[in-house]
Order: sequence, then C-alpha cells, then structure tokens
Amino acid sequence: MVSFECDYVAGAHPEILKRLVETNLENLPGYEDDHYCESAKEKIRAACGREDADVELLVGGTQTNMTVISTMLKEYEGVIAPDSGHINVHEAGAIEHSGHKVISVPADDGKLKAEDLRGCLKAFWDNPTHPHMVFPGMVYISHPTEYGTLYTLDELREIAGICKEHDIYLYIDGARLGYGIMSSDTDVTLKDIAELADVFYIGGTKVGALCGEAVVFTGGCKPDRFMTRIKTRAALLAKGRLLGVQFDTLFTDDLYFKISKHAIDMANRLKEIIRSKGWEFYHETPTNQQFILMNDEQMENLGKYVRYDIWDKYDDERTIVRLVTSWSTTEEDLDVLESVR
Amino acid sequence: MVSFECDYVAGAHPEILKRLVETNLENLPGYEDDHYCESAKEKIRAACGREDADVELLVGGTQTNMTVISTMLKEYEGVIAPDSGHINVHEAGAIEHSGHKVISVPADDGKLKAEDLRGCLKAFWDNPTHPHMVFPGMVYISHPTEYGTLYTLDELREIAGICKEHDIYLYIDGARLGYGIMSSDTDVTLKDIAELADVFYIGGTKVGALCGEAVVFTGGCKPDRFMTRIKTRAALLAKGRLLGVQFDTLFTDDLYFKISKHAIDMANRLKEIIRSKGWEFYHETPTNQQFILMNDEQMENLGKYVRYDIWDKYDDERTIVRLVTSWSTTEEDLDVLESVR
Amino acid sequence: MVSFECDYVAGAHPEILKRLVETNLENLPGYEDDHYCESAKEKIRAACGREDADVELLVGGTQTNMTVISTMLKEYEGVIAPDSGHINVHEAGAIEHSGHKVISVPADDGKLKAEDLRGCLKAFWDNPTHPHMVFPGMVYISHPTEYGTLYTLDELREIAGICKEHDIYLYIDGARLGYGIMSSDTDVTLKDIAELADVFYIGGTKVGALCGEAVVFTGGCKPDRFMTRIKTRAALLAKGRLLGVQFDTLFTDDLYFKISKHAIDMANRLKEIIRSKGWEFYHETPTNQQFILMNDEQMENLGKYVRYDIWDKYDDERTIVRLVTSWSTTEEDLDVLESVR
Amino acid sequence: MVSFECDYVAGAHPEILKRLVETNLENLPGYEDDHYCESAKEKIRAACGREDADVELLVGGTQTNMTVISTMLKEYEGVIAPDSGHINVHEAGAIEHSGHKVISVPADDGKLKAEDLRGCLKAFWDNPTHPHMVFPGMVYISHPTEYGTLYTLDELREIAGICKEHDIYLYIDGARLGYGIMSSDTDVTLKDIAELADVFYIGGTKVGALCGEAVVFTGGCKPDRFMTRIKTRAALLAKGRLLGVQFDTLFTDDLYFKISKHAIDMANRLKEIIRSKGWEFYHETPTNQQFILMNDEQMENLGKYVRYDIWDKYDDERTIVRLVTSWSTTEEDLDVLESVR
Repeated sequence: MVSFECDYVAGAHPEILKRLVETNLENLPGYEDDHYCESAKEKIRAACGREDADVELLVGGTQTNMTVISTMLKEYEGVIAPDSGHINVHEAGAIEHSGHKVISVPADDGKLKAEDLRGCLKAFWDNPTHPHMVFPGMVYISHPTEYGTLYTLDELREIAGICKEHDIYLYIDGARLGYGIMSSDTDVTLKDIAELADVFYIGGTKVGALCGEAVVFTGGCKPDRFMTRIKTRAALLAKGRLLGVQFDTLFTDDLYFKISKHAIDMANRLKEIIRSKGWEFYHETPTNQQFILMNDEQMENLGKYVRYDIWDKYDDERTIVRLVTSWSTTEEDLDVLESVR
Repeated sequence: MVSFECDYVAGAHPEILKRLVETNLENLPGYEDDHYCESAKEKIRAACGREDADVELLVGGTQTNMTVISTMLKEYEGVIAPDSGHINVHEAGAIEHSGHKVISVPADDGKLKAEDLRGCLKAFWDNPTHPHMVFPGMVYISHPTEYGTLYTLDELREIAGICKEHDIYLYIDGARLGYGIMSSDTDVTLKDIAELADVFYIGGTKVGALCGEAVVFTGGCKPDRFMTRIKTRAALLAKGRLLGVQFDTLFTDDLYFKISKHAIDMANRLKEIIRSKGWEFYHETPTNQQFILMNDEQMENLGKYVRYDIWDKYDDERTIVRLVTSWSTTEEDLDVLESVR
Repeated sequence: MVSFECDYVAGAHPEILKRLVETNLENLPGYEDDHYCESAKEKIRAACGREDADVELLVGGTQTNMTVISTMLKEYEGVIAPDSGHINVHEAGAIEHSGHKVISVPADDGKLKAEDLRGCLKAFWDNPTHPHMVFPGMVYISHPTEYGTLYTLDELREIAGICKEHDIYLYIDGARLGYGIMSSDTDVTLKDIAELADVFYIGGTKVGALCGEAVVFTGGCKPDRFMTRIKTRAALLAKGRLLGVQFDTLFTDDLYFKISKHAIDMANRLKEIIRSKGWEFYHETPTNQQFILMNDEQMENLGKYVRYDIWDKYDDERTIVRLVTSWSTTEEDLDVLESVR
Repeated sequence: MVSFECDYVAGAHPEILKRLVETNLENLPGYEDDHYCESAKEKIRAACGREDADVELLVGGTQTNMTVISTMLKEYEGVIAPDSGHINVHEAGAIEHSGHKVISVPADDGKLKAEDLRGCLKAFWDNPTHPHMVFPGMVYISHPTEYGTLYTLDELREIAGICKEHDIYLYIDGARLGYGIMSSDTDVTLKDIAELADVFYIGGTKVGALCGEAVVFTGGCKPDRFMTRIKTRAALLAKGRLLGVQFDTLFTDDLYFKISKHAIDMANRLKEIIRSKGWEFYHETPTNQQFILMNDEQMENLGKYVRYDIWDKYDDERTIVRLVTSWSTTEEDLDVLESVR
C-alpha cells in the first residue's frame, strides 16, 4: 500500500543498490578503512566546503546523536535542546542512558529560540549553586526540525554566536538535512551549516540510503580515537563499505541534492492536494512533512487509500496526522492521495 | 558567624555525638551488620507503623535518590518529577549519570499537581510512538519540597492513587521530612507517608545527623541483593555503625520529632522577624525555609550580621534570599537577626 | 587484491542483493515491523526446531553481545567468559561500558573448560565475602571460538548443565555459527545449540550478509519491551527490512548452510595448501580460520600475493598469521595462494 | 567480643571524636568549603612534601577508587591491576559499573610485578588490532596490598618509570597506607609515595577515622570541576566538616603515623603469638594483616575467644584465616588471643 507514513518506507535509491551490486565482490578491509569510505568522506568535505572537516560514518540517527553527544560532552555536562527535539522525545532515553541530561527548553514549533537559549544559559551561570547543577556543554537543534520547520540563516547565526560566546558546541541533527537545504523556502545551504555548526550530520537513512548518517566535525573538534569510541559504544559496523558506497553514491553527481529536491516537489504537490481536499493544516511546512487535523471518520477513510502517521491527539475529536514525502514518493503515490473522497 | 544559610550548618545533635562517644570502642562488624543498625531499623519501622518495611541506611541525599531510583527503575524507564525537584536541579545530573531520564513537569511552588501528573501519563500512553519514548516508571516528589511547601494528605492520596492506577512507584524524598511532619500547618504524619509511598527516605543530614538517610521500602519493593547494589554504586559505608548509632539515637525518645519541632518553632519566630523588619516575602512557608526578596544594599547589610543563602535572581534589582532554621538554630541566633538594622 | 584477512572482505551473497533489489521499492513499516522480518524470524525458528523461540534482528556482533548481556544481567552481575572471548578482547570494552564485568577464565584454545567453569562458580559461592563481589549471571562462549575451535556436543551439554545447576544463563556467540555447524568435524547442529543455549545468535555479517545478527531467545527469556531496550542502547535500525530481507533469504532453501559449507570446503583446501607449502600451523582448526607461524621474510613474500591477518606476535622471530575463508572465497582465490613461492 | 576481623571494628580514634565534639556547634559552610577541610588539606600537602598537590576528601575506599579511576580515564581506557586488587575482587563491580575494564594481571602475593606490567603493555601496543581493544590508561596498585605485602622503593620506582614511559597514570590505593609506611620493614615513606604516584589516597576509614579517604593528586592531574564530578557520582558529602575535622586531627602532631605505628607494634606481637601457638602462617606480612591456616576444629575453638576473618578456602581441610590489628587493638585484646588453648 502507498505510504506517506514516514521518509523511510522504501529501501535505497536504485543508484545506490546498483553501486552495491557492482562493488559487491571486491575484497575490502573492514571498519571504514576502504577506498569507498575515503572517497565518500572526500566528497562530503567538498560539498561542505570544508576541506579541514573530519567525516565519520555511522549507521543510524539515534546512534549518531548518542555517539556525538556522549563523546563530546564531559561527564558533568548536558545538552540543551528544544523540548520537541528527537533526543528529548523519541530516542527512548538513549542520551540519558549514555549519562547525560537533556536540558529541555520549550519550543512550540520545534525551533529553539535564541532568546530562550540565552535565558537558559544566563539562568545557569547566574545561579550561585551552579556547581551543583548540570553544566550546559552543547546545543542540539534539528534542521529541519521534527515539525518540518526550518531555521533562517540569521537564526542559525545568532544561535551559533551564543554558543561561541559561551564556548559550548553547536550540534545540528540533519536526519532530514537534504529536505531542509532543498526546500523552496530557505536561505540556508549545506555550506552555511558546515560553517556554523561545530558538528552536524547529513542524514542518509531518510534521504535515500538503506542506512547511514555522515557526521561532520569542523574545527578539529572530533574526539580522539573516535573509531575506538564508536566500538566501545557497540556501534561500529564491520563492513564499513556499506556506508562508504552509499555516501559515495549520494555525493556523486549531486544525487543527494537531486533526490531531496524531488521530495520537496512532491511535498509541494502534497500541500496543494491537502488544500484542495479542504483538510485542515496543523503545521504547513516548507519541507517534506505536513501535519493536518482529522477526525476519526476522516482518518478511517484516508486509511482505505494510503498509510499515514498518527502524530498525536489534538483534542477530544481530532488527531494530528502526519503525511510525509521522500526521495521515493512518486506522482502515482500522490495520484492515489488525490483520489481520496 | 551565625548562619541561616541552610539546615546543615552545624555538626550533629549533641545526643548523637554522646552516643557515638559511648559506643566508640565497641568492636562491631561492618556494613550495617551491627546491632545499632538493627535497632535503628526496628525503631524506624515502629515509628512508621510498618513492621513489614525494609529499612536501609545510606550516607547522603543525592546518593539515596540515585540509588533508589536507579535500582528500582528498569533501564528504559524514567522518573517523573516536578521541575523544581532536587533530582532535576541540584544533583549535577546524578540521575541521568545513572542512566535515567528525569521527566520534568512544571510546578510553580515545588509541588507536583495531580492533574499535571495525570496529563503527563496520559500523553505518554496515548502517544502511538511511546515504545520509542522513555517509559514513566516512578513519581518523585519531595515533602517538604525544595521551596518549603507541603502536600496536604488529600493531595498525597491523589498522587498515590494515580501511581497505583498506572502501576508505577511513588517515591518521596524526605531530606527535610521532620520539618514537614512537625510543621504547625500540616495534616500529614510519618505514618501517612509510610502508608502512601512505595519508598521514601527520612533525612538525617538536615535533621540532626552528621550524615545519613534512612530509606523505607514498603510492600516488599526493595530490590534484591540491595547491599551489593549499594556497593556496585560505590556507596556502601564500611563502618555502618556511624549510621546505625545516629538513627538509633534519633528514633529514641522521639528525638527526631522533638528537634524537628524546635526548628519549626524557630521558623515561626523567623517569620515574625521578617514581617517586623518589613522584608518582602517571596515564599512564606509552613516549614523551616523562608524566601524573601532583597536588593543589593539590603543584602550587604544583612551579611554584616548573619550568613544567608542566595537562592536566585528575582529581577534586575532584587534577589531571592533564603533563610533557613534547623534543629541547631538558637534563640540567640534569632536575636542576632532581630538586631539587624 | 585477493584477501584471506577475515570473513567479511566481500559484500553480501548475490542472492541477498538480488532480493534487496527486488523488494526495494515496496513501501514497508520501519523497526522490524514488516513481513520480511516476520518471515525471517519464522524460518529461523523452524531451522532451530524451536517454535517457542523469540528471534530479534540486530546489526552487528559487538552490538548484539552488548545488548544481550546488558539486558539480561542484573546490574550486580557479570558474565563469565574464556579470556580469549571476543567480549573480553576485541570489543573495546563495550561490555564494561554497559556496566558489567567480564569474569575471564584462562582458556588456551579459546574454549571454556567445564572444570574451570565449575571452579570459578565454586570459588565465588564458597567465598564468604561474595556479597561484595560481582555475581556470575551468565556464561558466554563462542562457537566456533575466536581460535576457530569447536565444542563437542558433550562439552556443550556439560556447560549447559552447570549453568542450569547454578541458575545462570548460557549465551553462545555465533558470529561464525554457520562455519561451526557445517564443519566436517563436528557433532553439534543448530538444533543442539537451540536446545542447549538460553540465548544465542546466528551471525550474518560473517556469513553472507551485509550486516545483521539474529538473536534467538529460548524458554521465554527475552527481556520485556526488548525493542525499546534496543533503542535505549541506540541500536535500533530504522529500516528493519534490511535485516529482514537478508535473513529471510539466508534461511530460504538452506542458503545459510550451503554457503557455510562452501567456506569449509575452501578451508579444507586451504589447509592442504598450507601443508603442501610446508608452512607451520599454529592452530589447525576444523572451521574457516587457520593460524600459521611465519617469519618476516615469509610474510613479506606472502603479502605480494594476498592480504592476510596478523594475529599476534609469537616470538622474536615469528608472527601468528591468520588465513580465513568465507562464503565468498573462490577456487581462484586459493589458486593465487597456491601460486605463492 | 574482641575482634581481629578487620581494621574497622572500632569507631574513631578518641582524639577525633573529641575534636568533632569541640567543633560541633560551629556554623560552617557545606561541601568541604570550611576551614577544617582547608587546614586538613594544607597539613596533608605538608606531610607529603608536595605543596603543589591537590587534596580532595571522600567518604569511602570503593567510592574513592571509582571516582578517581572513572574521572581520570577516558571512556575507552581501562585500568591495569593485579588480579588480587581490591577493585578487581571486592568492589562488586563498581569500576565496571562506571564503564571501565579492570585489566587484571596475575599476582600471587598481591603485588604487580614490573615485568608483568611491561608484558601487558607491550602485548597491547604490539597487537595490530589494539584499536579494537581497551586502552590501558592507568596502573592501580595497593600499598600495602590486600595480602598485607609491601612494595620496595625500587619496585615502586620501576613501576612508576614504566607508567611515565607509556604516559599512563600510576594510582596507589592507600586504604591502609599508614600501616605500610610505619611497617618495621619498609623503605617507602609517604613522601616517596607522593613523589612516585600521579594520584593516591591516604586511607582514613581503616586508620582511625569514622570514615574518609584523602585523595592526593600531584602534578596538576586533578580533573577539572572535580567537586561537580563527585556530585554527579552521588558521592558528595554535605557536611564536609566531618571529613575535614577528622583529617585535620589525624595530621596534627603526627597522629596518623603514631596510631599506625601502634597497629604495627600490635601486629608484631600478634605474629609472635601465632608462632608461639604453632599456628601455620599462610602469609606472614610486614603490616597489620596476618594470614594463617586452620582446620575446622581450630577455627571453632578460636571463635570462642575472638572474632576473626575467613579469607578463603585453602584446601579440603584447611581455611585461610585472617587476623588483623589496627589503631584500636589493645594489649588486652592480644592477651585474649594469647589465652587461646
């Protein structure tokens, strides 16, 4: 059944599978010590405009968040995040399991406000008992956010400035980074991200890969012996080639950007369909996730045509329904949605 | 200098030191396997009206919170707490360091509202993605709270009922329990606490002991091999007698209650002094902590007479100042405060 | 270059890639909630002769060991392992990072001896101070071992018996399980493993998969809310299909067994070549790993033909060299080795 | 009953209790911010001949070991220890619970041999797969050891040299340091320890205090924000004065050394009694612990006179019995032992 449930309903972009097949029987060393990983990292550095960056490949998003946060923070430090942040809501406590507090800040639309960040940092440092409190060591934001919203370049600059001022890391979760960068309505590029964040990741799982996230450390901030640290966290993939070949393919001939743009095109048509159907938007967003309100009857009907995601209860009668496009969404998928009556 | 800074400015109640001296050269086994520990536990059970309870003695408050929470929760569970709760603010992330999320709920006056607790639990269980979230496994409240406020018996009953309904633990942090129970303005007794909480602790450090907290587990909820679990957390005291003699003394002839009552009497006079001086209350409380607002000039002047605690900034001009009485506060101490001009 | 370095030098068995391509654009739910995962698990249960078993799919071996051990042990328990065990040597401390001691027992050939296991358990329980020690909660063995050796059925039965007697888990690391089961020199079948172990895993990464290990819990010993526990460890794969399709393919038409048998055939020829060359065996084994001794000159020469693994120093002059076959080793690869002069 | 069970059978040295009583009602700040702590630290620095040292006071031995080791090691590092080391045997896995492997080295008499240490380090660094292994980051030894034995100055110097060579920390567990330094048969002084170790602790619990251990960091190796790190581990004592007054007293007028010397004098008489009784030594040591072999009948008889410690089984007939003197052992206690028939 056609699914708008999430951006990982399909396998990998066919080009990726093709390359996996072509390279399959080549004998290669393990643990990302192969030339595909090297090439992928080189291409990512180039795309980011940061030849000095260190790129590391990991398998999944929560794994990446946990690994980055827990290797970069000191044990007495926590990470500031908007309360809707993936690490604060949907990672089953993986950050806390790794020993660190998520210091959450209210954020209606998924975005951390500079003002709130300043307030949070000031409250900490002004408090005379702060040596008995969790020290803020990093700021975590998602771009796009979990609600599909985007920061403007000015907003990112302000947040980055506050981080620099307080000498703490800015970490950007880019699980859906492609869908942010290729939005019709953004002034933020990959190079901007790479200039402003101390560390960020380029999501593969949700943007065309079977699995895989590429972490980019700038300014030499990669923790020492990072490969061993990954292994200590039981997160090291033996056949690193699986990640190398995928990211090498995604960053060849702008594939990552092209397929992200496709998802945005599909999302734009999705929004038109929503409007044409008279469905009520809960969040209309510039990226690949759209949130609408539906009552039980509407949901039951919709479910006859496509799969969708139940985001949360809205009120006694209505539910927030999420519809998501991705690199794999087709015009035919949208035709099915359009056919709903 | 006379200090109203906190409730641990003095050593131990003299009766405790007397007993430590008297028993000092007695040869005793270690690790709470001595007859003073046994006697202390027996007396605490009796005072709680729970002959079935398991009592364990630990050294400090944060240590107790961390040990109780992390031994009782499953790894994927977190603890719900009011956002002002000690575990959420002033334990330097000890709970998260032990692997568990503190699920914080806004609480203006330090008290968790039954309604908010219900909302928090309902939001979790209603959310279809909850298997990817931290499961609520325990509710943590302090009585008195960090702001000196108290739950009514009805409020405690309602919270306990919600916990039972959801099959999660209710844990009461009693760091200042004596000052709550002996307040002039409460309908909650130690026996009520012991009836309603699954587990709670009776604070010694802030109520007359050099150190020590007595954890009371009811209904057989004490985790197995608890002594080993304490040691695995590096929290086992070799000379358990130090805790045993202290709690045995505190629970002989109602000493714990008498010295708590004394602190309340002192707090009542403190409130009168505050009023007579025309100082502005930020929180006037029924227990041993009072919160007032002062500008810099007032604080500088106050500091010439006594030590006090800076709680937090209130606004650009005023600071929240905390004044605390305890078992060791004397009428002479209050005379000094009264002499402030 | 032809490589005998390890059993993960190639990608996936072509049949697996074929199935990944065929199923690629099917829209499926994430987190192993798809029908390929279901089918894979069903087939694995059948192959094990344990319809009652719970099967879970994870990405890598260290991840599987850490997840199984840390979810099944109580916090004060450790895992007994031969000192050469993967968890004790080559997991960068992942087990200790998860909080648990590896209680190592000397084992010359990689195999835990029943007698040593008995001795270890008796020493613990006889020691009057054992409440201050790490409790043994599980026995970990690998089959085949890290040295390519195999347990006999009698040996496994005896170890399983000791575990049952002491009410602790027996966990078998089957990273190379296929190469053990299909050895020309074993009386142990997959069904024997499934009957004797409380929990074990069937390795995919080293036996034909791009990645993936299938954990089999017997007797209902799977920890509750296991999916959430995986996520809390940041080890949950979003596109579970990647694991499902692979294991479904491996357990269709006995593919797993056939490709394992092929590796054994290749190993048998490898041993002949070693003998014919007059190279000295350090360990000659019944599985896919062979260990030989070489001096620097020999190694340099060998390196001109194939890639090999340096296992360890043997003495001042000689090195232990490991040569490994796998499902992907070809007769042509061995021809290259045979051509070494 | 008179007890030779361990060195913590009594409370505190009477002089300590006297000082606790004298200072009891003085109002002091918490968390070691009082002048007794300051004075104690100053005196300890002087006794160590290291004005540059950082001294920190903690409550117990396992807590100190866990705190020092886990704050000084990187996450992928472990601590090398003789297999009989307290951290490897009797701390219920506290080090592993903090995430670090104890890399144990066989040591018959409790002492780590320089040769074995060299071998352990060489094996690690020579192994080409060491990035997948736990990195050695620290060496842990006890002086005296758990078996009552002592290192010579030359032995300590050699071990310290190896550590420096490999740029790893040398940490000395001095739970019974006084009994080592004041042995009749040693050439190692407190100043030697302070010169050779990067970090060590001076045991209070077993040498006259109710509780307390003083950690000495040399060469500026104390981790930053150490007080917060202690609190994050739930190990911070509110009434730091309890530790300050005790160590201030112990390091006034050489009390620590005098009472340690007393224990050694008592141990010397104990050894004479053992010989005169014809009891068989298992370990005759230069410190306060003596180990003898007894059969069941002998033990039953001994138990009628004094309490003793069962160390371990020796063979089917005999048990290793430990007899311990301390600062609190009296001539009268030894008279009782002498009266055994």
